[in-house]
Amino acid sequence: MFEFKLHKEAADCSARLGTITTAHGTIQTPIFMPVGTLATVKAMSPRELDEIGAQIILSNTYHLYLRPGHGLIHDAGGLHKFMNWEKPILTDSGGFQVFSLGDLRKITEDGVEFRSHIDGSKHFFSPEHATEVQMALGSDIAMTFDQCPPYPCEREEVRKAVDRTTRWAQRCLDFHNHDYQVLFGIVQGGVYRDLRESSTEALVKMDFPGYAIGGLSVGEPKPLMYEVLDYTTPMLPREKPRYLMGVGTPDALLEGVAKGVDMFDCVLPTRIARNGTVMTSQGKLVVRNAAYARDFQPLDPDCNCYACSNFSRAYIRHLIKANEILGFRLTTIHNLHFLLDLMSKVRQAITEERFLQFKDNFMRQYNGEQKG
Amino acid sequence: MFEFKLHKEAADCSARLGTITTAHGTIQTPIFMPVGTLATVKAMSPRELDEIGAQIILSNTYHLYLRPGHGLIHDAGGLHKFMNWEKPILTDSGGFQVFSLGDLRKITEDGVEFRSHIDGSKHFFSPEHATEVQMALGSDIAMTFDQCPPYPCEREEVRKAVDRTTRWAQRCLDFHNHDYQVLFGIVQGGVYRDLRESSTEALVKMDFPGYAIGGLSVGEPKPLMYEVLDYTTPMLPREKPRYLMGVGTPDALLEGVAKGVDMFDCVLPTRIARNGTVMTSQGKLVVRNAAYARDFQPLDPDCNCYACSNFSRAYIRHLIKANEILGFRLTTIHNLHFLLDLMSKVRQAITEERFLQFKDNFMRQYNGEQKG
Repeated sequence: MFEFKLHKEAADCSARLGTITTAHGTIQTPIFMPVGTLATVKAMSPRELDEIGAQIILSNTYHLYLRPGHGLIHDAGGLHKFMNWEKPILTDSGGFQVFSLGDLRKITEDGVEFRSHIDGSKHFFSPEHATEVQMALGSDIAMTFDQCPPYPCEREEVRKAVDRTTRWAQRCLDFHNHDYQVLFGIVQGGVYRDLRESSTEALVKMDFPGYAIGGLSVGEPKPLMYEVLDYTTPMLPREKPRYLMGVGTPDALLEGVAKGVDMFDCVLPTRIARNGTVMTSQGKLVVRNAAYARDFQPLDPDCNCYACSNFSRAYIRHLIKANEILGFRLTTIHNLHFLLDLMSKVRQAITEERFLQFKDNFMRQYNGEQKG
Repeated sequence: MFEFKLHKEAADCSARLGTITTAHGTIQTPIFMPVGTLATVKAMSPRELDEIGAQIILSNTYHLYLRPGHGLIHDAGGLHKFMNWEKPILTDSGGFQVFSLGDLRKITEDGVEFRSHIDGSKHFFSPEHATEVQMALGSDIAMTFDQCPPYPCEREEVRKAVDRTTRWAQRCLDFHNHDYQVLFGIVQGGVYRDLRESSTEALVKMDFPGYAIGGLSVGEPKPLMYEVLDYTTPMLPREKPRYLMGVGTPDALLEGVAKGVDMFDCVLPTRIARNGTVMTSQGKLVVRNAAYARDFQPLDPDCNCYACSNFSRAYIRHLIKANEILGFRLTTIHNLHFLLDLMSKVRQAITEERFLQFKDNFMRQYNGEQKG
């Protein structure tokens, strides 16, 4: 069960407003998806995710395959039931993770042999197996098993990765067989325009219900990523959702939206939170710094999340310095709320035909008073 | 502001039903107090504490003095405001902690010189200073600065500790000067009946608004602790609350109530939770054990806490094995809920004049099917 409805397109940029309907409910786009690698968004409860307005989360196939295992999750009634999250879930294919293993993996046309980062045990992921694991997990949106080249990367290497990604996408599609789950294709091609074009063209022919743009936010300068988006999103079907993988800084989210992206995910907001850094309307703030030891203001005076409504920077700094779990919880709640709230404001601005103005104002404020 | 009302006393044992009224609200006794050492009950938010029915929490003066410092907390508006907990707080005096430092401390009649367990810096706590720190924190109930001997301990050593504790109690009382906060005395005396008697007698003369029984649960066998309670609580004034320090196992709570204790605290439920162990109506359960990997029941099928209402043993085990914060949160919620719920049932049973029967039934079930 899957439907994408395009409600509105900005006149002065490529921003779009839409809804995605899945078996587990409807998602308003553009949307940011919090990452719940191991069937939990680190430090958050499902109830808290719900309260901050999370509409869909992402979970990682590679990690869940290794522990607790997709068989166990399937026996538990699927990932939604296992983790008690009733709204939509997108799973990645594990492609990005296994390719990131470096020396621990060996790629052949058939798939990738790799060693677990936990215990060194040997495993094999093929396009079919990655798809099978995702079917067992029962996510609403599954991803094809792609080959994601690093940055920088020689053109010839990227070309080979694109061709293999295309062949593997077809194998995933042929293998995929699940009533409620849909499979998105992933465009590769690094920062080479003709390779992005050939990748997009080949995948669009396969008629996926949605498309991800992969292989970005892997170390390239942001202007280069924006350039790739500039020529890639226009090639993607207008009536299908577009998902930019691994992007979660406020500036990149806003640029992505302006360039026609509907979905984003990133571990950044939760990871920096556990490190004592928060995003605020006035820019980033490293709350663990000594400067905030006696600062009794909330993390972000403009925010109404649970952390900002009830606790001071001084308290949260104390908790984080003392390694107290509540500290990590509060910064995580705040950062996720901040990005979800940003996307909600983005949707409102698109609705009211003032997105570019909103984007400029937001970035001016965010960059103007950089703190920490 | 402080009032203790005794509503009922059991006919067949020393169990009592009461209410304590403080500046931050009323507490139903007998009560278990969750421990929030560093101005946070580890892994819990104040909202969650509220939801599981916590009426009062304990916080540790020694730890807060070292970080973030009582001055900072005072400037934040006091401990309640700093940690956003609007209900009553009891602070210990730091006595137990500094005496536990072993080689790191030196005791004189004036007080205790000690080195911080964090950075080795040198500090000095006197009865006056321990009281001053607690006044700055603004807890509802403060404790006198006592000398807590270890177990086992020679009679002569314990005698000296009792005498010093008495002198220090008077100094705390003389120094204490706070409108809303009250000071409880602490009875010492180890397992020596005559020393408990002289300690109790001396403190009762000072007319504290409440009395703690200290120096128990420090390694002595439980029957010995029960014996001390048997002769100590009857010497304490009937119309004042009695607090048994550091006790939090279900059996000891029930025995303590039967012997006339009104208040308890212990880090045990939160500490074992973070270790993957939970208390259930059928006994302890080590949910991190492999036996629960595919157990899709709740931690305790008889429990209605957030953890048991929404998650399985298999999921919680997975989280804890993977070191995920939500795992520690769920076991902590459950264990604290379990003890608070137990005390609520205890109060109900006393009200309905069937406490001893309740106690026997509970312990039979708790011991009968020990798991893990």
